[in-house]
Amino acid sequence: MILRDLIERKRDGGRLSDDELREVANAAAAGTVPDYQLAALLMAIFFRGLDGAETRALTASMLGTGQVLQRPAGAPPWIDKHSTGGVGDKTSLILAPLLAAVGVAVPMMSGRGLGHTGGTLDKLESIPGFRTDLSLAQAAAQLERIGCALIGQTAEIAPADGRLYALRDATATVECIQLIAASIMSKKLAEGLTGLVLDVKRGSGAFLPELDRGLELARTMIALGEAAGVPVVTLLTAMDRPLGNACGNALEVRECLDAMRGHGPADLWTVTEALAIEMLRLARPSLTEDEARTTLLDAMQRGAALEKFREIVIAQGGDVRTIDDPALLPTAPHIGDVLAARGGIVQAIPPRPVGHAIIALGGGRTSKDDRVDPAVGLVLRVRVGDTVVAGQPLATVHARTAAALDAAGERLREIVHLGEQAPADVLPWVSHRVTSRGEELVRP
Amino acid sequence: MILRDLIERKRDGGRLSDDELREVANAAAAGTVPDYQLAALLMAIFFRGLDGAETRALTASMLGTGQVLQRPAGAPPWIDKHSTGGVGDKTSLILAPLLAAVGVAVPMMSGRGLGHTGGTLDKLESIPGFRTDLSLAQAAAQLERIGCALIGQTAEIAPADGRLYALRDATATVECIQLIAASIMSKKLAEGLTGLVLDVKRGSGAFLPELDRGLELARTMIALGEAAGVPVVTLLTAMDRPLGNACGNALEVRECLDAMRGHGPADLWTVTEALAIEMLRLARPSLTEDEARTTLLDAMQRGAALEKFREIVIAQGGDVRTIDDPALLPTAPHIGDVLAARGGIVQAIPPRPVGHAIIALGGGRTSKDDRVDPAVGLVLRVRVGDTVVAGQPLATVHARTAAALDAAGERLREIVHLGEQAPADVLPWVSHRVTSRGEELVRP
Repeated sequence: MILRDLIERKRDGGRLSDDELREVANAAAAGTVPDYQLAALLMAIFFRGLDGAETRALTASMLGTGQVLQRPAGAPPWIDKHSTGGVGDKTSLILAPLLAAVGVAVPMMSGRGLGHTGGTLDKLESIPGFRTDLSLAQAAAQLERIGCALIGQTAEIAPADGRLYALRDATATVECIQLIAASIMSKKLAEGLTGLVLDVKRGSGAFLPELDRGLELARTMIALGEAAGVPVVTLLTAMDRPLGNACGNALEVRECLDAMRGHGPADLWTVTEALAIEMLRLARPSLTEDEARTTLLDAMQRGAALEKFREIVIAQGGDVRTIDDPALLPTAPHIGDVLAARGGIVQAIPPRPVGHAIIALGGGRTSKDDRVDPAVGLVLRVRVGDTVVAGQPLATVHARTAAALDAAGERLREIVHLGEQAPADVLPWVSHRVTSRGEELVRP
Repeated sequence: MILRDLIERKRDGGRLSDDELREVANAAAAGTVPDYQLAALLMAIFFRGLDGAETRALTASMLGTGQVLQRPAGAPPWIDKHSTGGVGDKTSLILAPLLAAVGVAVPMMSGRGLGHTGGTLDKLESIPGFRTDLSLAQAAAQLERIGCALIGQTAEIAPADGRLYALRDATATVECIQLIAASIMSKKLAEGLTGLVLDVKRGSGAFLPELDRGLELARTMIALGEAAGVPVVTLLTAMDRPLGNACGNALEVRECLDAMRGHGPADLWTVTEALAIEMLRLARPSLTEDEARTTLLDAMQRGAALEKFREIVIAQGGDVRTIDDPALLPTAPHIGDVLAARGGIVQAIPPRPVGHAIIALGGGRTSKDDRVDPAVGLVLRVRVGDTVVAGQPLATVHARTAAALDAAGERLREIVHLGEQAPADVLPWVSHRVTSRGEELVRP
């Protein structure tokens, strides 16, 4: 393989063969080609795209550079969920134990927060002692024992994707639908899944804000799943405002504990339940939507999800006392309410600036190597459409310093847009359902 | 400077500021940014281009990373010529001594052959002992003493261009008009020129075969020269067939010695004279075209160009006996004629396959690190439009081995297209003249 010639061909709109893409993936994993040639190839792909066969070949090739979890014969279905990320998006922390509580095994591989979006690993690690760096063998053993493992991407899994993703991040070539889909699916297929639910966010705070691009990603991932024999169902959900109230790592764990006790925010449950129904029906296709909903609600109401979460925390070394006493989670020394400077109707709470406020508080990352402060963040006290009066709390901020508290308050008073009329164009929390048979609007 | 953000902006069609481009050039020269980010930026520039101001800023910034020759007050005009390269293109070897012989100083910085095109440095180095690795200080001293220095790009000159060019070569991002123009001009402006003549080749053997692209390069380089106060005149010349008869390093030196003695091929003189007139008129704008031609012909006829070449060879350490006895140049052990298998009219002698035949003989490079055999090559014995009979020599091949001789003969019988009718669409040797005032067709 002469990589320069492949770059030139892709640059000029040509296509790469399965063998060539396998050689690229193998060479990327083995480090036998220079980063600068891979970077140029990725930028050429950014401009020229990959066709369906190329995307499948790249996915299979990246998957093939690493290990794959083997689901034992007779094991329960293995179902995972992947989200394109957002602010306050904490459904994974509820979905994993909830599905495991109803007999679906969840080998959930998650990521860390970057930029304005949070990450499941960071949230879990705000539980003192919680370890997410399990090997695949450890994850498989835990999956068999308690039906769930919450892990990060290890060097065992699709190492070609690891190298290419790091390069994409450094070279502004992340936002390419086919590369995104291949990257996600090469990791998800390594989990040995029997089905995958994809939560594609839309709206201003989403990685791909436009509906069309979200649908394109959904279709691309569904086709990749189909080629690998893994059914993929996608829901398009709203990220034009934060999901739930809590934004920040430990604060989001608290909100999930509340939700598993039945008193979380309604919007968080709306999205979580919709995703959970899809996961459960992928595992047991004979269930109707109503039967799936009833099964899941029953598990929540009898506390089975919370009990399963307790098992997971114990299995992964976390301080289990935090489940009954969330005050043992990291807490910030400076906590204060942000008060509305005037009255009005909340027009918008755009997620990106909220995410950047979390970063400013120390709770997020601008670069992969940043450390996050698990305790800081904010809890929204109003929702879009609420009428507020002057002096009413808009949010409660949890900060490391008094100065950070004040600065976050300033920002939030700007972020929470107040107006005189009812807000227009608020996205439904769950708007579209996409499967290999096509897409349908979801009735509210 | 966050290079990732610049890549993203250029990727999305935005522009980079003068300061940003200077930081990129400085960081490239200093090696303080990773190659993979530079490679991604170059590919984004390939797709999005640079506007006039960006191209000027990049050129000036790359120039600024190195040293610049300072033309002493009162020195004669310093004029150089640059060609986009071709097969048999040996005009530099005549132009440099010829212009120096008429009082124009020529600080000529040349390159090596790569791919199907030859390089002036390789040709010069076929003269035993000839050194092209002069420092800028040595070149300046020689320029003052004898009016000419023939050198290669050293690490002193535009080191940012050196790094970026190597990356472009490895990442298929060479063929971008603005990057080509910035690269050439950053080196040429380092020579401290008072004027530059650009020979842009067109036709199948040219780097940019299409006329439109050649004109675009011409206009871009002219604008860069104008911004730097250095007038640039461009001639578009033919590279749909080799220039002259000899192709191969020592063989081309021999042909140039013949030409300087007045019996070189007519086409070689046609192109050389046209370029020489432009160089002389840039140095002495008061001369008419006819006056310039007369001055140059006189210098050729009284042997002044050859005498100046002798001075150059002595100054740069070459074996001066080769000038009067070209048999002392490297010679190949296997020399043989390639005979026409049938009769006909020569329809075409496409330069790319001729260049590849030279590479196969060992006289060219497929990669920068290849060594070239100075002795090998071929001398065409027929021109496009000639009528040949079966058994007539098409070319004489100079090879290192008998097998290479036979193989080159096979190739040449395929390369020299014979047909029944007069060939169509042969390009005029000099077709367009482009200056800052616009372009004009050159009458044959």
